[in-house]
Amino acid sequence: MQDDKYPLITHSCDSRFVTLRFLQTLQGRSRTGLYIIEGIRHLARAVQHHARIQSIFLDPSLLSNPFGQRLARSLRKCGVPGVRLSPKLYRELTLAGDPQGIGAVLRQQWIQLAHVRTEPNSLWLALESIESQGNLGTIIRTAEATGATGIFILGPGCDPYDPAAVRASMGSLFSQRLTKCSPRDFETWAKSREVVIVGSSPAGKLDYKALRYRFPAALLIGGEKRGLSNQLIETSDLSVRIPMCGDCDSINVAVAAGVLLFEMSSQRPTI
Amino acid sequence: MQDDKYPLITHSCDSRFVTLRFLQTLQGRSRTGLYIIEGIRHLARAVQHHARIQSIFLDPSLLSNPFGQRLARSLRKCGVPGVRLSPKLYRELTLAGDPQGIGAVLRQQWIQLAHVRTEPNSLWLALESIESQGNLGTIIRTAEATGATGIFILGPGCDPYDPAAVRASMGSLFSQRLTKCSPRDFETWAKSREVVIVGSSPAGKLDYKALRYRFPAALLIGGEKRGLSNQLIETSDLSVRIPMCGDCDSINVAVAAGVLLFEMSSQRPTI
Repeated sequence: MQDDKYPLITHSCDSRFVTLRFLQTLQGRSRTGLYIIEGIRHLARAVQHHARIQSIFLDPSLLSNPFGQRLARSLRKCGVPGVRLSPKLYRELTLAGDPQGIGAVLRQQWIQLAHVRTEPNSLWLALESIESQGNLGTIIRTAEATGATGIFILGPGCDPYDPAAVRASMGSLFSQRLTKCSPRDFETWAKSREVVIVGSSPAGKLDYKALRYRFPAALLIGGEKRGLSNQLIETSDLSVRIPMCGDCDSINVAVAAGVLLFEMSSQRPTI
Repeated sequence: MQDDKYPLITHSCDSRFVTLRFLQTLQGRSRTGLYIIEGIRHLARAVQHHARIQSIFLDPSLLSNPFGQRLARSLRKCGVPGVRLSPKLYRELTLAGDPQGIGAVLRQQWIQLAHVRTEPNSLWLALESIESQGNLGTIIRTAEATGATGIFILGPGCDPYDPAAVRASMGSLFSQRLTKCSPRDFETWAKSREVVIVGSSPAGKLDYKALRYRFPAALLIGGEKRGLSNQLIETSDLSVRIPMCGDCDSINVAVAAGVLLFEMSSQRPTI
């Protein structure tokens, strides 16, 4: 492809590369409000969902896919700035085993709590302290598949724009409405809008499948090790559990979120 | 703890350490029929399920948990051989972010296809070419939680004894009945025993939730990228799909397996 209009970076101390590396850290993402994506599928979905693309980065030696090449050309023609990276530098920016030679810097999209409107029969997801960013991304992917209306992020350290979360979300991030707030503010929001808060816990009182859910509803999911905090369990209008066999006392948090979201989603009168 | 009866290894070229490292490879596991686990929870569950523990390895500087120390002492008293490893060597044997200072070498447990007996209302899981060993382990953990009767491994490269799979299974591996065979042999086994084969695919004809399953049944799950092979789709008596919203055409394979297994499990007359 003709990519000679983008400058080539070969040194890791180049300030443009240092800026890209900075976005791999939580601090870098928090300070700038930006994040990184990598791969053709992710970038194509970002374009499709009108995500705010700030710049792109390429490794032309890896970008052999014709669709990916067309995507890069089209973004350049639209005036999106970019850089070419040496193969070594490019690999430092991706978690992919088989990097595809194209990535982008995007602006994070957060919706302020005050602007989050409920809709009839809406289904929300609220996440507290998911530790594995891979699990977080997988949950976001499931949220899109189940038509969740939006996602609340209720704890620090739970960053949907972390590279591992972005990668596991498989492009679902761009279509999701994300809101960051405290558990207390979430509770106030939900109660004032008559959103039923459904807590999930191994000690939950009700079998998740034996229940007829009312909507709008928000499903609360806690972290891998400690589950939901007492504060959020007390906030819940209902507390559900997934019954398990044998000695098993828990399943992976992304699997649990999937099982609960698909059950609740199947009970929504309309989507 | 008093661990001075176990010899200390400090050099990576020590043949006992080389043997341990060899078990981190597929070749090493295939040749020896052994595998490695790490962590107190895993080892405690291995003991509970009478897994065949060949030897243990320790890093006494990490093993501060009193329960873990008692476990090590008790195994040593039972005559289980062991070694102590320097912190550097120990870390080379674990994927854990917070290693716990105790691990073991176990013998793999495979049930020959000819010895796999069906039971009334049994629920089986058959996995074809799961690429991520983390997903594989997560699926095994869900299989235990849903009371699956046994797991068929239908493809090469899908190794439940891989360290990443073992870790993600969270100790569920020891209670599972595992059988490795070809898709053709699996089909012959299922048909001859009137086990209903339920294929899962995004193009499946039936909504997984709209169906009343008959048992014994075997759920077929394909790999992350290509899903089930045509051969196994044709083998299936039923082909189910998980309906998805929006632009989403797929979810994580371990989430999909969880959603399907919990639905089928909930429909089993008795467990």
